[in-house]
Amino acid sequence: MDLLTIPARKGKAAFVAQGQVVTVVNTHGEQVVDTWAFNRADLTEFMSMEHSRAHTLRLVPRPGDVMRTNRRRPILTWLEDTSGGVHDTLIAACDRHRYAFLGHEGHHDNCTDNLAQGMAELGLVPPNVPSPLNLFMNIPWSPDGTLAFASPPKPVPGGHVALRAEMELVIAFSACPQDILPINGAAGRPVEAHFRIA
Amino acid sequence: MDLLTIPARKGKAAFVAQGQVVTVVNTHGEQVVDTWAFNRADLTEFMSMEHSRAHTLRLVPRPGDVMRTNRRRPILTWLEDTSGGVHDTLIAACDRHRYAFLGHEGHHDNCTDNLAQGMAELGLVPPNVPSPLNLFMNIPWSPDGTLAFASPPKPVPGGHVALRAEMELVIAFSACPQDILPINGAAGRPVEAHFRIA
Repeated sequence: MDLLTIPARKGKAAFVAQGQVVTVVNTHGEQVVDTWAFNRADLTEFMSMEHSRAHTLRLVPRPGDVMRTNRRRPILTWLEDTSGGVHDTLIAACDRHRYAFLGHEGHHDNCTDNLAQGMAELGLVPPNVPSPLNLFMNIPWSPDGTLAFASPPKPVPGGHVALRAEMELVIAFSACPQDILPINGAAGRPVEAHFRIA
Repeated sequence: MDLLTIPARKGKAAFVAQGQVVTVVNTHGEQVVDTWAFNRADLTEFMSMEHSRAHTLRLVPRPGDVMRTNRRRPILTWLEDTSGGVHDTLIAACDRHRYAFLGHEGHHDNCTDNLAQGMAELGLVPPNVPSPLNLFMNIPWSPDGTLAFASPPKPVPGGHVALRAEMELVIAFSACPQDILPINGAAGRPVEAHFRIA
């Protein structure tokens, strides 16, 4: 299957059959991609960071790790990661409240609205906004538990992660539109990313 | 106000007025207390670990930190902590799936059901199960992001945390019934805890 686009600052969702592999490509190397997965048969079951961490016992998943739903069932298995391995499971999707908090006035694209927009294009309404799997996002932690929003430590243009679907699911992405903090690179220029389902 | 009991292995919820202080006491020193807070006027707004971490920039909150809702509004402010300061914001509430996973057959008390039970005693139904604030729970992290379920590093019987309500809210607790992993002490004996609202 050809590469599909997650447009800059916007969302995109797709259906994935059990056993298919979703490959998410960080085309330009510094773009965060917020990622969600929902059980296609029951959207109230979804990939959960807090349930997954209880089983992976890791802040950041790596190949071999299994992401679980809020009912602790496997939903996505990490197969491969050529992106440098820096991802985040700790931080909420940005939203209009976040940008107001950062001093932005008026509308600002945001990952929470992008989840709804991407799902709406499939005729779906997410029942809530789960904590996202923030691919390619760099939130370093210190020994005392202090966190920071940081640029990618070493951008890998074209780097990708490959995730196998463990059930019939809906995958949803947002190419994070954060342009105030340096999370999408020091230049603060959100761009598009790509994915493939095969 | 007198001390109220969170019964061993069970849940308990209460209404809290804006400005009141909720004091949670680790009576015996090794008991994890899963804690949730909901906007009393709209239960779909609740204390969110992933939104709070984006603002506190800490894995574990401490006095002065503000816990925020999924709409990024302040809901609880940490005033005091005499418990040793070890808490968790990373791990989901235990549930029946968790105990099945750990090899337990048949019914096992669990924090997810306890949230529903505690709220039901107030005539309320939580719309979902937010990631809990796990008071007195020790999930150490390593520089490479590895997590562990560990006993309290230094139990402080009678240690407490004091949290100020920043809106009219419903507070819900579960005295975690985990008796397979050593999270409630090496002896694996879940006990009661207490709280006060004043």
